[in-house]
Amino acid sequence: MPKYVYRFDEGGREQRDLLGGKGANLAEMTRLGLPVPPGFTITTEACRATMRDGRVPPALRVEVTTALREVEDALGRRLGAPLDPLLVSVRSGAKFSMPGMMDTVLNVGLTDASVPGLAAASGDERFAWDSYRRLVQMFGATVLGVAAGAFDAALEARKAAAGATADVDLSAADLRSLVDDYRAIVRAATGRDFPQDPREQLDLAIEAVLGSWNTERARLYRRRERIPDDLGTAVNVVAMVFGNLGDDSGTGVAFTRDPSTGRPGVYGDYLPNAQGEDVVAGTRNTLTLDDLRERDPRSHAELLAAMRRLETHYRDLCDIEFTIERGRLWLLQTRVGKRTAAAAFRIAVQLVDEHLLTADEALARVTGEQLGRLLFPRFDAAAATPLTRGLGASPGAAVGEIVLDNAQALERTQAGADVVLVRRETSPDDLAGMIAAVGVLTARGGKTSHAAVVARGMGRCAVVGAEALDVDHERGEVRVDGTVLRPGDVIALDGTTGEVFRGEVPVVDSPVLRYVADGLEAGLAAAPDDDAAELVRAVHRLLTHADTVRRLGVRANADTAEDALRARRRGAEGIGLCRTEHQFLGERRVHVERVVLAADDDERRSALAALLPLQRDDFTALLEAMDGLPTTIRLLDPPLHEFLPDLTELSVRVALAAERGEAPGHEERLLAAVRRMHEQNPMLGLRGVRLGLTVPGLFALQVRAVAEAAAGLHRAGRDPRPEIMVPLVGSVREMQLVREEARAVLAQVADETGVTLEVPVGCMVELPRAALTAQRIATQADFFSFGTNDLTQTTWGFSRDDVEGAFFSEYLENGVLTISPFETIDADGVGALVRTGVERGRSARPGLPCGVCGEHGGDPESIRFFHDVGLDYVSCSPFRVPVARLEAGRAAVVPAEDTGA
Amino acid sequence: MPKYVYRFDEGGREQRDLLGGKGANLAEMTRLGLPVPPGFTITTEACRATMRDGRVPPALRVEVTTALREVEDALGRRLGAPLDPLLVSVRSGAKFSMPGMMDTVLNVGLTDASVPGLAAASGDERFAWDSYRRLVQMFGATVLGVAAGAFDAALEARKAAAGATADVDLSAADLRSLVDDYRAIVRAATGRDFPQDPREQLDLAIEAVLGSWNTERARLYRRRERIPDDLGTAVNVVAMVFGNLGDDSGTGVAFTRDPSTGRPGVYGDYLPNAQGEDVVAGTRNTLTLDDLRERDPRSHAELLAAMRRLETHYRDLCDIEFTIERGRLWLLQTRVGKRTAAAAFRIAVQLVDEHLLTADEALARVTGEQLGRLLFPRFDAAAATPLTRGLGASPGAAVGEIVLDNAQALERTQAGADVVLVRRETSPDDLAGMIAAVGVLTARGGKTSHAAVVARGMGRCAVVGAEALDVDHERGEVRVDGTVLRPGDVIALDGTTGEVFRGEVPVVDSPVLRYVADGLEAGLAAAPDDDAAELVRAVHRLLTHADTVRRLGVRANADTAEDALRARRRGAEGIGLCRTEHQFLGERRVHVERVVLAADDDERRSALAALLPLQRDDFTALLEAMDGLPTTIRLLDPPLHEFLPDLTELSVRVALAAERGEAPGHEERLLAAVRRMHEQNPMLGLRGVRLGLTVPGLFALQVRAVAEAAAGLHRAGRDPRPEIMVPLVGSVREMQLVREEARAVLAQVADETGVTLEVPVGCMVELPRAALTAQRIATQADFFSFGTNDLTQTTWGFSRDDVEGAFFSEYLENGVLTISPFETIDADGVGALVRTGVERGRSARPGLPCGVCGEHGGDPESIRFFHDVGLDYVSCSPFRVPVARLEAGRAAVVPAEDTGA
Repeated sequence: MPKYVYRFDEGGREQRDLLGGKGANLAEMTRLGLPVPPGFTITTEACRATMRDGRVPPALRVEVTTALREVEDALGRRLGAPLDPLLVSVRSGAKFSMPGMMDTVLNVGLTDASVPGLAAASGDERFAWDSYRRLVQMFGATVLGVAAGAFDAALEARKAAAGATADVDLSAADLRSLVDDYRAIVRAATGRDFPQDPREQLDLAIEAVLGSWNTERARLYRRRERIPDDLGTAVNVVAMVFGNLGDDSGTGVAFTRDPSTGRPGVYGDYLPNAQGEDVVAGTRNTLTLDDLRERDPRSHAELLAAMRRLETHYRDLCDIEFTIERGRLWLLQTRVGKRTAAAAFRIAVQLVDEHLLTADEALARVTGEQLGRLLFPRFDAAAATPLTRGLGASPGAAVGEIVLDNAQALERTQAGADVVLVRRETSPDDLAGMIAAVGVLTARGGKTSHAAVVARGMGRCAVVGAEALDVDHERGEVRVDGTVLRPGDVIALDGTTGEVFRGEVPVVDSPVLRYVADGLEAGLAAAPDDDAAELVRAVHRLLTHADTVRRLGVRANADTAEDALRARRRGAEGIGLCRTEHQFLGERRVHVERVVLAADDDERRSALAALLPLQRDDFTALLEAMDGLPTTIRLLDPPLHEFLPDLTELSVRVALAAERGEAPGHEERLLAAVRRMHEQNPMLGLRGVRLGLTVPGLFALQVRAVAEAAAGLHRAGRDPRPEIMVPLVGSVREMQLVREEARAVLAQVADETGVTLEVPVGCMVELPRAALTAQRIATQADFFSFGTNDLTQTTWGFSRDDVEGAFFSEYLENGVLTISPFETIDADGVGALVRTGVERGRSARPGLPCGVCGEHGGDPESIRFFHDVGLDYVSCSPFRVPVARLEAGRAAVVPAEDTGA
Repeated sequence: MPKYVYRFDEGGREQRDLLGGKGANLAEMTRLGLPVPPGFTITTEACRATMRDGRVPPALRVEVTTALREVEDALGRRLGAPLDPLLVSVRSGAKFSMPGMMDTVLNVGLTDASVPGLAAASGDERFAWDSYRRLVQMFGATVLGVAAGAFDAALEARKAAAGATADVDLSAADLRSLVDDYRAIVRAATGRDFPQDPREQLDLAIEAVLGSWNTERARLYRRRERIPDDLGTAVNVVAMVFGNLGDDSGTGVAFTRDPSTGRPGVYGDYLPNAQGEDVVAGTRNTLTLDDLRERDPRSHAELLAAMRRLETHYRDLCDIEFTIERGRLWLLQTRVGKRTAAAAFRIAVQLVDEHLLTADEALARVTGEQLGRLLFPRFDAAAATPLTRGLGASPGAAVGEIVLDNAQALERTQAGADVVLVRRETSPDDLAGMIAAVGVLTARGGKTSHAAVVARGMGRCAVVGAEALDVDHERGEVRVDGTVLRPGDVIALDGTTGEVFRGEVPVVDSPVLRYVADGLEAGLAAAPDDDAAELVRAVHRLLTHADTVRRLGVRANADTAEDALRARRRGAEGIGLCRTEHQFLGERRVHVERVVLAADDDERRSALAALLPLQRDDFTALLEAMDGLPTTIRLLDPPLHEFLPDLTELSVRVALAAERGEAPGHEERLLAAVRRMHEQNPMLGLRGVRLGLTVPGLFALQVRAVAEAAAGLHRAGRDPRPEIMVPLVGSVREMQLVREEARAVLAQVADETGVTLEVPVGCMVELPRAALTAQRIATQADFFSFGTNDLTQTTWGFSRDDVEGAFFSEYLENGVLTISPFETIDADGVGALVRTGVERGRSARPGLPCGVCGEHGGDPESIRFFHDVGLDYVSCSPFRVPVARLEAGRAAVVPAEDTGA
């Protein structure tokens, strides 16, 4: 038969599954000999049995009796006895914290008979009646299901009758009458009296707390947090101690280090003559722990000793709830304390210096997500009221003049202004404006819309999907809730919270960003104070340690030499993805139009040839920036028609021109081509390798540009290391054809230039079929790079542009998704294909280099996954490189099971 | 050391790998004691060694010597001897037939020295010189690489000089001079004389034939036919026999049964005093085998005995090439004969009746593809010249008046006319017109375009992608190469060849179609002659046998009661896919618009409620038609905006209306909604289960309609067996949510009606993620149905609508694809996911019913695959049901390795 009840001195912190987090830590403190009020924990197994059987297990009642008697004996008091009664609290406590989701009942044991005893023992009749009326209220609402509003109304009525403005103005007699009012409410609502049997109170409270595991609210919370429904909660029954029995009593919260800055030294709040809820409510000004030392040196010393003991024991920052009852210290709760990102780094490093942690353990204590937070500038305070709010898509803080298009953006930035690009939504056409701007704001799109993805890639602050915005490009204005904004008006974006402000809001720079971008000296120079400088040093130490232990390489996704240099400064060991799309944008579009409209092969060839010197220059700059490091260049991926005007817009223009009797011109010719090339689902259309195999000369042009650029650099004494990557491969034959063509061009250029370079030609694995047939494709590929963006789209069958807005919020709400699979890799589906691809690819070609270049390459949880499946490197946006370095290090030192991965 | 040369009496038909098809059969005939001219086969291994080493293996020359001497000894003649010389043919012969792809040299051994010997032995000097000039020409072109045109020119010049119009008018002296001309050409082109050493001729000829395996032409052919490049060809060296040595000589081709009708009794052509090439050329009228009996009863009897021996031995129709040289019969080749679909069925059944085959073996001898061909009506003969040609997308023959839209189609069919719907391309809007029409013709789209898929589904003849057509819907005319066609003009379509004719072309009906549609009596009644009647009986016997042996169930994809009844008559054992899309089309679109434009939940609910009775009626009719059989109803799959007008068209209309100063109306409101709902990639958008989870009430409406229909039928004493299928599921949670909702609705309707029916709720597996996580999804699904159309799209990352035209032809050309993966399942990629889905699904839920409802369910090769992976049933268009029944039977009796699957 299972044991349903554990006294605090029977358990320990390793028993979180059975005792819940709170119970396990209470037992641990008891085991350490710290002053914890006596009590016991009812196990999660009792909760599971209750759920299963639809009733509390009969054995539980007996075990509660035994445990309760031991508490009574320890204290020499009895539950609800007329003289000096023992009161208990009944609190939930699950394995994973579910703050505010489940029930608590305090002061259990008070009855008509024991109130006088409590009054006598405490010497405070008002306190006794106040405690009683709190019990009736809490018990009525929580255990008996009486609507809470009824009690509030009665309290207000009683205060009015007594001429009192605050609760504390009510006298003992008032409170006694209020108890009568409350009990009448209970009787009216439930048809029964508030129970006068202390044990009945206890049993009903336990049952209610067990049952609160399965409220609709709790289930919804768990679904969102991915906490399994079958864990159950534990219940902690603890002898009540009171911090509100006079000036020698009090209550407080303490941290073993400052959880905000990470500064060493204890930190806490203390409120004399108060209960815990008064601290939380924040209605009275709290004192510091130094004040406590002056008021009660003995308790203070005892508290500090306990804190030192706990920190040493847990080897981490602890937070503690304590109560002093008439000069006697009681610890009511402890746990490893939550902290800011800055504190996490500083504390981890301090504990290494104090010989409490190894460097590996310290690395495990910080996360890439925390480092990411430290990199972004922020608004100083919520000094301003937001004008509206969207999705925080790319963190940071940006203040600038509104611009509505590329031309305005360039004009104003050349005039020295900071600008924020505001668009209904963005497209590749807006790239110039996005580059020029300090921030991007769109009315439409989700967290992985074009604007969001590109902005994150550039580390540019972005707020997207601010639906209240009416961006009227025609009139050149932006309307929001009656306000009209025009180009030149200043707005501010918070890329973390998604808030949009009108006018300037002060911004603070991040010294950590300066550090990762420009090195330790620059970071320290940018630090405004000692805390910031210590933080920079802590980040430096842990990041450096991560570099020494990680197995995964870290590359960057960068399309230009500028991005590449930025990535390199941040520690990138190569380029994992250079998209060549931008080489066909802007003024070069005219060449694409010529290719598309070409009447014959000659015309097309000459249109392509015109692009050769331009692309060669692009690649020369890029390879020069990455001198000595591998640089993976992806051949053209998007459908050609993406470089042409939009079908609908062009149709309308041509129709209107015809209506106005204008002569058919270039646009009409173009429309025919656009119509011909229009695709219902361009994502699934003529793109990637398909384009290369159907537009003669296109890939050869790109390969030639790469080869000529590399040869030129080599002759100039440099060490260019290009790698050519073929996108959207689904079958080995595609790869074979393109690789043969590429190798022929490479050989030809080697002949022409006399420079022979080994240029690997590899495969982007971004279709399920590529992963499933990887053993064949590997025979024709020098490397694999998993394109997890497209792989996610095809594996799930949704396009991120089309569905994020349409149903992601719904799907997050109902628990189908807990996070966008475009943010963190879907290990069960997409990840299974990555694993298959790696295994099958290496089965055919042992040691096949494998990397990832989807957005997931910069996501902490995903990096852990990629480490586990044995990839050689991740590639991410330059901005995410330090995060990836840190996480790659953590993956190497934290065993997989500790992360739940 | 390998043995490179096999005498014919050393090999056998089981050695096709080593001896090639021709060599193996020559050896088999020799083994049977049939009169085969002596000879030997050089193995494919010799060819592989030659390819590998870049030269013929030295041992080969020695082995050829030995084998040649044995031939010489057997005949008592020597190769190229001055007196009665032995001549040989040198022919390629690979494992798989590659007609016309590789080289042949005849008459090897003739030299200046041996021509007189041949003349003496044959008693025909002209014959001898003609043989010699043929050798020089063939050897020059094939072995020595002289351009063939030079020989042709010399021949023409010689004919002109001799005043001859045909080759046969040239005298022996003319031919002798021609040999001189030819030899001069060889000398001029190669710098050497035509070799006068017979053995040198033989060695060079063997080398040339071995080398012809690797010509560009042969490689291209193999790539398309998926024949591995490393098989190599065998070479057969055979003593020449001559059918042109006078009236007691001749040559012929014979079949053991009629390969065209399958009628029993030998069948063949004979040409006296002729060589094989004269039969093929068709310049002289051939005689029958009966004529041969009269001319040469002994050879005739010997031939018939040999044919009976071969048919008994091969247990199949054989075709034979024979030559009679001065009254002596020689068999030059045999193989299992090609035959028409009709002959295949009749011969298989005859061989059962003759106790040469078991019924299982007979079933293995026919294919679903052959049955499919028997079902389609055809044009009687190519009496007319095609106007143009497209892709034959759905077989059949259709003659009718041109109509360009639904209205015309309905008007003309109501007036009693047959109509052909001609569209630039079709969309779901054209369904009414397609139903009314006897055939569909489009200018755009591939074999799996909308028009093609829907037409095949309905068994309606269709030609698509006839690109020369300029379909001008605005002017109401169709232009093609200068011809203008208008509604009312009659055209004819051949859905097999893709030909389009102007005017009527006579059509023959298929009695087999009548049989599968209406039963044996109807089929026999429709048979115009005994052959047709016998064919109907043969099909009936094999199809009936297939039904008794098959393990796979066969269901149909049918959306309406009419289709369901049609399928049932053809033997469908249920409906595997009822699409509910059509329930939202036509006049019901207005309700969809109301749903989309609904301002609040109430409006949407009432818009949906208006659809309930309509859908209930649909389901009632369907379930009544399928009384007692499982009927799988798929909840709504396409994005709602597919039921709204096209964005571009609507944008143009609204812009023009604004330009004309017209007041904004309904269309402008609608445009806003269409814009809002527009998706870049609707295939990857808000559809299927996503729609069900984001449009409250939509799926509940459909489930209720099904449940109420079933309850009504049940109360009327019927046996409705609906199954509900959820489309586009990617995660178990989606399935769980929809299933819970569906079960709640089912329970509610059971309460309301008092009828409780067990309605399974299953999952359509059509996303890679569903297959990859099938072990989870199966916990919430009562059955799986693989939607291989969408699964193919997502696994390969291409949409069939977008890419078939754009690059499929290119991909077929360069060998990336040999067939559209939308036609035959891609076993390595998509099939691997089907296998994974079945295995993982059943690992969680043993015995989980699994079927397939993609187009592949009706494809013969795919059916074999589905049998092998253990599916329970396939579902296909009603028209394909008999084909599926046959193939399912074949899958059960033919071991997997025999199909290459």
